[in-house]
Amino acid sequence: MSDAFTAIAALNARYARCIDDGELAGWPEFFTERCLYKVTTAENYADGLEGAVIYADSRAMLVDRVSALGEANIFERHAYRHILGAPFVVGEDGDGTRSETSFVVVRIMRDGMTDVFASGRYVDVVRLDGGDAKLAERIVVCDSSRIDTLLALPL
Amino acid sequence: MSDAFTAIAALNARYARCIDDGELAGWPEFFTERCLYKVTTAENYADGLEGAVIYADSRAMLVDRVSALGEANIFERHAYRHILGAPFVVGEDGDGTRSETSFVVVRIMRDGMTDVFASGRYVDVVRLDGGDAKLAERIVVCDSSRIDTLLALPL
Amino acid sequence: MSDAFTAIAALNARYARCIDDGELAGWPEFFTERCLYKVTTAENYADGLEGAVIYADSRAMLVDRVSALGEANIFERHAYRHILGAPFVVGEDGDGTRSETSFVVVRIMRDGMTDVFASGRYVDVVRLDGGDAKLAERIVVCDSSRIDTLLALPL
Repeated sequence: MSDAFTAIAALNARYARCIDDGELAGWPEFFTERCLYKVTTAENYADGLEGAVIYADSRAMLVDRVSALGEANIFERHAYRHILGAPFVVGEDGDGTRSETSFVVVRIMRDGMTDVFASGRYVDVVRLDGGDAKLAERIVVCDSSRIDTLLALPL
Repeated sequence: MSDAFTAIAALNARYARCIDDGELAGWPEFFTERCLYKVTTAENYADGLEGAVIYADSRAMLVDRVSALGEANIFERHAYRHILGAPFVVGEDGDGTRSETSFVVVRIMRDGMTDVFASGRYVDVVRLDGGDAKLAERIVVCDSSRIDTLLALPL
Repeated sequence: MSDAFTAIAALNARYARCIDDGELAGWPEFFTERCLYKVTTAENYADGLEGAVIYADSRAMLVDRVSALGEANIFERHAYRHILGAPFVVGEDGDGTRSETSFVVVRIMRDGMTDVFASGRYVDVVRLDGGDAKLAERIVVCDSSRIDTLLALPL
């Protein structure tokens, strides 16, 4: 369990760095080929509702999404900074290691102003086999029900 | 020391998750039966003053507090998200392992607005014996001298 | 690599605590005698520009800086709280272990208001040999191009 803790903390640090540095082309590589990536709200998640702001169930869909962003980004010039808590390792089952990690994302506007953009938790299934940890599932549960629908960058 | 570091980081992740998920009934379980839980300000703490916004010296008192909150919460519908730094393990003595951890708590209002609600550090004595780490002391030292006196959820 | 991860996370926790507790006299001790400490912006860093808001290339310069702050601090009474992410260990070379860590700093004003003061990442070279990890380089890359020029405390 302590190994899983360290491996997932390191995976999360790489994941956040990839997005915050704008290296989005590398982002799909954090996922297994068949995967689940979803951005939803705490309210929908608690109610078991299916509605999601973003939904992808393969790495190929994530690649598509990132390509689309490449162009959109020209219009949106602000940066993000993810700060993640330590992972809470829930346990292991046939799918992989289940873990949850809190996040806060601050947004830095072009004029230098910084505010809290989003907060929530990642609900993950992580494949730790082999040297390279991968996300089989990452459900991004946002605390706020008001998610920016122009959400440009992945969370 | 590296084991203590990982054990306390994992304890803190579970602790924050318990509060942020609203599972308050489980919160007293993070403490030993005779314990110290105190919320105070940096100014009072530095001056060695006894005044505390919240004070409890047994797990039973924490249970009482949580029961009271169960009802109050009906009126207060906003969420919190704790982001904790890595623990700084100060050392060990007869009481347990002394450690400090920085925290920032953001508050998500009903309308979706998010702001920084509180920041500070936990000054802890942790009992690591046995599989299950427990808090013998958690003094919550808030940076701001203006603590919300309606403080509903534990920090 | 997992050892480096834990050692750097612990170093960062001590570093942040030193600044947030106002124990600035101890801050230069985190660096090797010949070192590089620089505060710059993401824009300058990406463009490879040399301009830096703060620049020091020896521990002695850091000691000087801290002495100057001791007096300036009388006029500036607000506190900071650093929250650091987990380190991303990039790799090792002849200089030491290269690592990057995200940070967000919140500022607590005298009247209790708290806002996000700065965010960015540390780009570090860490010497792990011996029991005591030291910074041979810490380049503080701020996300915002609007860094407070009155920047009193180190980041």
